[in-house]
Amino acid sequence: MIDYLIKYFDNYVALEEEERGFIRGNISVREVLKDEILLSEGEVSTEFYFIIKGCIRLFYTVDVEEKTAFFYTENMFVSSYESFTKQTPSKHYLQAIEPTKVATISFDVAYRQLEQIPKFEFLARVMMEEELIVYQEIISSFVTLNAEQRYLKLLSSNKSLLQRIPQYQLATFLGVTPETLSRIRKRVSSKPIS
Amino acid sequence: MIDYLIKYFDNYVALEEEERGFIRGNISVREVLKDEILLSEGEVSTEFYFIIKGCIRLFYTVDVEEKTAFFYTENMFVSSYESFTKQTPSKHYLQAIEPTKVATISFDVAYRQLEQIPKFEFLARVMMEEELIVYQEIISSFVTLNAEQRYLKLLSSNKSLLQRIPQYQLATFLGVTPETLSRIRKRVSSKPIS
Repeated sequence: MIDYLIKYFDNYVALEEEERGFIRGNISVREVLKDEILLSEGEVSTEFYFIIKGCIRLFYTVDVEEKTAFFYTENMFVSSYESFTKQTPSKHYLQAIEPTKVATISFDVAYRQLEQIPKFEFLARVMMEEELIVYQEIISSFVTLNAEQRYLKLLSSNKSLLQRIPQYQLATFLGVTPETLSRIRKRVSSKPIS
Repeated sequence: MIDYLIKYFDNYVALEEEERGFIRGNISVREVLKDEILLSEGEVSTEFYFIIKGCIRLFYTVDVEEKTAFFYTENMFVSSYESFTKQTPSKHYLQAIEPTKVATISFDVAYRQLEQIPKFEFLARVMMEEELIVYQEIISSFVTLNAEQRYLKLLSSNKSLLQRIPQYQLATFLGVTPETLSRIRKRVSSKPIS
């Protein structure tokens, strides 16, 4: 299973057998249950994840209301950078929305990797670039689109994901009530496909 | 002036004289006018910036309306990562809100730096970590706070910045009309300081 991560790295850089060995010896695969919380608000993040299969939701709570910022899917790295790098309490939750398989990279291993294997500096940069692009995407979507436009964007970019997300979670992502979400779905499905 | 950037790097890593020379020879300082646009929507980003003095606003346009996502100030790196690294059209604008001095790092220089001076791999990572933290901050602020709370946050975290931002730009950051902003300011200034 960990070879799945190694194969992903292979897209970016040629790893020596020794480096593969380091990954196999230090990064473990974890099965996460549906609805299981990987990180809570207030907790210090000690690891980050690479999704082999499944989906992880990043959400905030305001009073008791959940506000979803992003859904991570296969082949994405999931981290709480500020908390992880500065070892400060996380401001958000990470939760699996379905049975999920992740490669787990601990704080210690991440820093040991970077010290022992210079190649991983390059990998760390590539991973962070991907993460930055995701964040810019989230920001532009929150700033420029309304609920219906965000629904349509998800529909066109990742239709299969839309079918995997529970309705109440999707509503917290769009920032609307479940009732408004129903209305959006009806309106969208009755529109001719352009 | 470029020594200001070198001094900033010194906080992170010890640079050799030759490396300082590379920076001096390849990174230039640019004076940007108030309201000058550094990057437009649709343009491909070919450089990124380090603010020595001044303030740069990141904004989107929706129809003709401006939506401000962030204000960068002194000692921050400003980049349009997706556009810069993938050489795709930018989705947002970068604009100086006051006379601003930036160190300008071009696409070519950035990649040459990374190839020639392994130390810059480390620096690139640290800069990106800072950038990721800024983005998480923007996301959490958009997702969890309303206009008045965002105004209060800016007031407590960076009061002097608040005084530098033109009112209409501040309104586009809070997502309200200038009239609503006036009401928020009045309400906040009449509250006892807690």
